[in-house]
Amino acid sequence: MSVFTSVSRDELTVWLKQFAVGELLDFQGISAGIENTNYFVDTQHGRYVLTLFEKLTADELPYYINLMAHLAEHGIPCPGPVASLEGQRLLELNGKPACLVSRLNGKSVEQTTVAHCAAVGEMLASIHLAGKSYPAHMDNPRGPKWWKETSPDVLSHMDDADAAMLREELRYQSLFRFQDLPRGVIHADLFRDNALFDGERLSGVIDFYFACNDAWLYDVAITVNDWCMDASGVLDRERMLALLRAYHAVRPLSPIERGAWPVMLRAGALRFWMSRLYDLHFPRPGEQTHAKDPGHFQRILAGHIAAENELKRIWV
Amino acid sequence: MSVFTSVSRDELTVWLKQFAVGELLDFQGISAGIENTNYFVDTQHGRYVLTLFEKLTADELPYYINLMAHLAEHGIPCPGPVASLEGQRLLELNGKPACLVSRLNGKSVEQTTVAHCAAVGEMLASIHLAGKSYPAHMDNPRGPKWWKETSPDVLSHMDDADAAMLREELRYQSLFRFQDLPRGVIHADLFRDNALFDGERLSGVIDFYFACNDAWLYDVAITVNDWCMDASGVLDRERMLALLRAYHAVRPLSPIERGAWPVMLRAGALRFWMSRLYDLHFPRPGEQTHAKDPGHFQRILAGHIAAENELKRIWV
Repeated sequence: MSVFTSVSRDELTVWLKQFAVGELLDFQGISAGIENTNYFVDTQHGRYVLTLFEKLTADELPYYINLMAHLAEHGIPCPGPVASLEGQRLLELNGKPACLVSRLNGKSVEQTTVAHCAAVGEMLASIHLAGKSYPAHMDNPRGPKWWKETSPDVLSHMDDADAAMLREELRYQSLFRFQDLPRGVIHADLFRDNALFDGERLSGVIDFYFACNDAWLYDVAITVNDWCMDASGVLDRERMLALLRAYHAVRPLSPIERGAWPVMLRAGALRFWMSRLYDLHFPRPGEQTHAKDPGHFQRILAGHIAAENELKRIWV
Repeated sequence: MSVFTSVSRDELTVWLKQFAVGELLDFQGISAGIENTNYFVDTQHGRYVLTLFEKLTADELPYYINLMAHLAEHGIPCPGPVASLEGQRLLELNGKPACLVSRLNGKSVEQTTVAHCAAVGEMLASIHLAGKSYPAHMDNPRGPKWWKETSPDVLSHMDDADAAMLREELRYQSLFRFQDLPRGVIHADLFRDNALFDGERLSGVIDFYFACNDAWLYDVAITVNDWCMDASGVLDRERMLALLRAYHAVRPLSPIERGAWPVMLRAGALRFWMSRLYDLHFPRPGEQTHAKDPGHFQRILAGHIAAENELKRIWV
């Protein structure tokens, strides 16, 4: 159940009069999503998704909402915010910041194929290119600075072996200069549930509420860590190559990026291992807990480390 | 045949690299349209229409293209221009100004019902409201000033009876102060072939290349003169009332507009009678002539005059 703030038909009918979208025909709460309240909204002019923001504030939201508008206008199939007659993309409904965005066709896939991975690689590179002209900036709130600040709290809840692994990975990552990598707007959460497929075609990318400015390659690593794994967290080389090749065809990877790839794969795994540990041990007050298994990303990280060590043994 | 400027697959593939729309999948010339060259273009990211402008120039086009972007962002289902990676909506292809816009579902209807007319009335009022915040301005190039300038040329080609009718209508219209009516952006050409229906739903409004700033009620009259007529040009009262009621529910008509309605119905008919006469007698050089019958709008005008005279007889 993810409708935290309920909206009545009468409330929605009145609220929609601020837009040129025609009369309300139908609406329905959406059960997916744990951060916001979402409704499907059908009007005379089209099909939309209404989002009421439960945690993000009206100060934080313009970066995300204007980014979606920017990307949608530049050919990325992502939710396009509808502007009100007063020209506002972000309004208020039942005391929450709220926006109305276009609804995309398609549904997410669970089992990914080489073709899915190629489509996602192409799309991610297109997002990176289209984001180059986006003027706003937001530092990554889950980047190396956050890892460092959060690690003492998280480490205090871990057993010795896991804590040693985390400490070692933080040390390893601290040696690497992220700043040297080409950077720009990244989605930062392009997991399978944030991509929609209409048959074979990647018809939509959704949920830009972790988007920020960071190394593009880090975004690629996050994506590979979800799309190119088997269920036990073992990397599938064929799908990874398909994703990287399709990405590279749109935005060619530089030599420094090729060299940094093993580090980024580990950084992408570390980020979700840490945030899942944090969410597990420090649930937000009043949170209906949907804490996901941190062990999944610990295993992925261990796999990347083992693969890297194996390569080193071959080379040395 | 309306592909005046042909585009090869190789040319299109290269041109599309300026956008973040993915690889070209398929494209096909569109036979409809007599002013521009149009292609359906399918890419990895979506379905688009490519337009090469054969007559409008890069100076004139921003008003129309930015208007479509504005309306699309404000909830009007109209073609949304895709911005290039450099942020341009208007580019050049094979020596012609060219733009890529989103392709809408649906097809136009020939025979209109009360439901179609109500849907169009609602949409036209929504366009008028959404256009209020559009900052650019363009005078109506086919307004009273153009009628006056063009009438001597047109009259010289008409027989005495028709010329007398046209002179009398121009005199009648010259007595009316258009400037007193509420005004804003108007579509100015919302004929049946410029609206798409997906089943019962009005899924798109296209062809904004006659849009301009003028009296909103004039736009309503132009629309009624196409949607609410039977084949012989006789006004169907039931469909007209459906269109007006749906319009009024979104943007209420003021007392002055209600009083001006018979004048506007005649003005809307006069405009197309005159432009069709002009196109018939003064075809542009090199034009493949598709001149439409001016007599259709002369009959509509005659019908409006007769109806008004009948009302006057009742009232006097």
